[in-house]
Amino acid sequence: MAGRVLVNGVSATTVSVFDRGLSYGDGLFETIRFVQGAAPLWLRHMERLGDGCRRLRLPPPDVATLLSEAGIVAKGMDQAVVRITITRGMGERGYAPPSSPVATRIVAGFEAPGMSGDVYTSGLRARWCETRLAPQPLLAGLKHLNRLEQVLARAEWSDPSVGEGLVCDIDGHVISGTMTNLFAVLDDHLVTPALDRCGVAGVARAEILATVPDARVIPLCPEDIEGASEVFLSSSVRGILPVQAVGDTVYGPGPVIRALQQHWRGLGFPMEQA
Amino acid sequence: MAGRVLVNGVSATTVSVFDRGLSYGDGLFETIRFVQGAAPLWLRHMERLGDGCRRLRLPPPDVATLLSEAGIVAKGMDQAVVRITITRGMGERGYAPPSSPVATRIVAGFEAPGMSGDVYTSGLRARWCETRLAPQPLLAGLKHLNRLEQVLARAEWSDPSVGEGLVCDIDGHVISGTMTNLFAVLDDHLVTPALDRCGVAGVARAEILATVPDARVIPLCPEDIEGASEVFLSSSVRGILPVQAVGDTVYGPGPVIRALQQHWRGLGFPMEQA
Repeated sequence: MAGRVLVNGVSATTVSVFDRGLSYGDGLFETIRFVQGAAPLWLRHMERLGDGCRRLRLPPPDVATLLSEAGIVAKGMDQAVVRITITRGMGERGYAPPSSPVATRIVAGFEAPGMSGDVYTSGLRARWCETRLAPQPLLAGLKHLNRLEQVLARAEWSDPSVGEGLVCDIDGHVISGTMTNLFAVLDDHLVTPALDRCGVAGVARAEILATVPDARVIPLCPEDIEGASEVFLSSSVRGILPVQAVGDTVYGPGPVIRALQQHWRGLGFPMEQA
Repeated sequence: MAGRVLVNGVSATTVSVFDRGLSYGDGLFETIRFVQGAAPLWLRHMERLGDGCRRLRLPPPDVATLLSEAGIVAKGMDQAVVRITITRGMGERGYAPPSSPVATRIVAGFEAPGMSGDVYTSGLRARWCETRLAPQPLLAGLKHLNRLEQVLARAEWSDPSVGEGLVCDIDGHVISGTMTNLFAVLDDHLVTPALDRCGVAGVARAEILATVPDARVIPLCPEDIEGASEVFLSSSVRGILPVQAVGDTVYGPGPVIRALQQHWRGLGFPMEQA
């Protein structure tokens, strides 16, 4: 459930109906896991947010202000998720961005979702989604507010025993889960899809790539995933999630997954991942 | 400037920060021209909105309520634009749509933008945009809230003498203007791009296609536009806009444009289009 919310530094739960975040999805967001007041991946979140602001020509947010506000909305929660949303603020009607935009900054705290330890031990079940992601290099990698593709993909199933859906792009390349990034071990090599045409370049993915320098970022097709020895999903909120099965193809968590889960614990994320 | 706003039928200027319209762009909108309290293209707007709600599985809005609320926010304005926004409403954090969503309905009135009669007589200047639209058949044609591509394309120029930018898709086919649909006369035939992979299927475009039954919906490339005898843009807010030039290629308004402008006057739109 939602905790506190700050809008431009002030306690509030609403934004203007004329905000460009609502009108056009003209903005970015981050969802950041806090553990007892600390966010182990904070710097990577700020790096992606700063990069996104540059690419969309949004005014860069003040990182110290964000950290202070995130601390306020997460206060009193042992395990929190803080969503930071930055929009291009108010605008006249029309797509043209204001020449001097004043961003809207929304910082909201939530209790972190409960995850059973089983998920980390045995893994979750995934499915292939029919929704395909469109290639748009200008937006690829960004965690922007235009997320209808993810909504459509996530709406494809309601079976609670399916924990995530895997999505391909229009050319049939595997890109990611609806809310996670995808990794596989192929011939003893850690691989993950390239995200230069679509998908969200997750912060947990960045941490993994920094931790495993010989991991490869390559195009992947569903057949590659079917033939993998390990498959897992990464999420800055949920950590390293082994995939137990995709449809009828079954996997067991192997040494790469276990090593990365150990790394995650070392970052300070909870031991529920044991 | 903005006039009145109704949110779910109540005078208000804000929505919840947890609205899925803001979080994910999970919704649709219409911008509807009113002339002295009447909206000549109302039925076509409602048709597109209903179709969009079906495709995105949003609860269909009550059309009588929308008409009543549009009348309220446009009241007292001779020339108004009413923006209707329908979102999937409040949601828990996460892409999964609520199983029983309660839509948010925002109806906002604005004074219609002033247009010099010159634009209708001589036409406007357009430019080619570098931003390419991504192919996404699941969303093509819809006027949804994921409009970052249009924001990026419109941000490419600030020269006020350029009235519109033309955008192609990733394969190089011409799709539309940033906020208008595109028509051309090729070999005495009225043609307009197919919008089954990207673009917004405008209400004015639908009116034109219904009025000119032998108009052709076909793939078009920039060379086709360069070789056209007439080029114009359609907009439910601004009407039939001749294109005077695209870059260095110059056009004169011809008989097809004049006939459609006459048709627009017959619908009840203002005579500034003379």
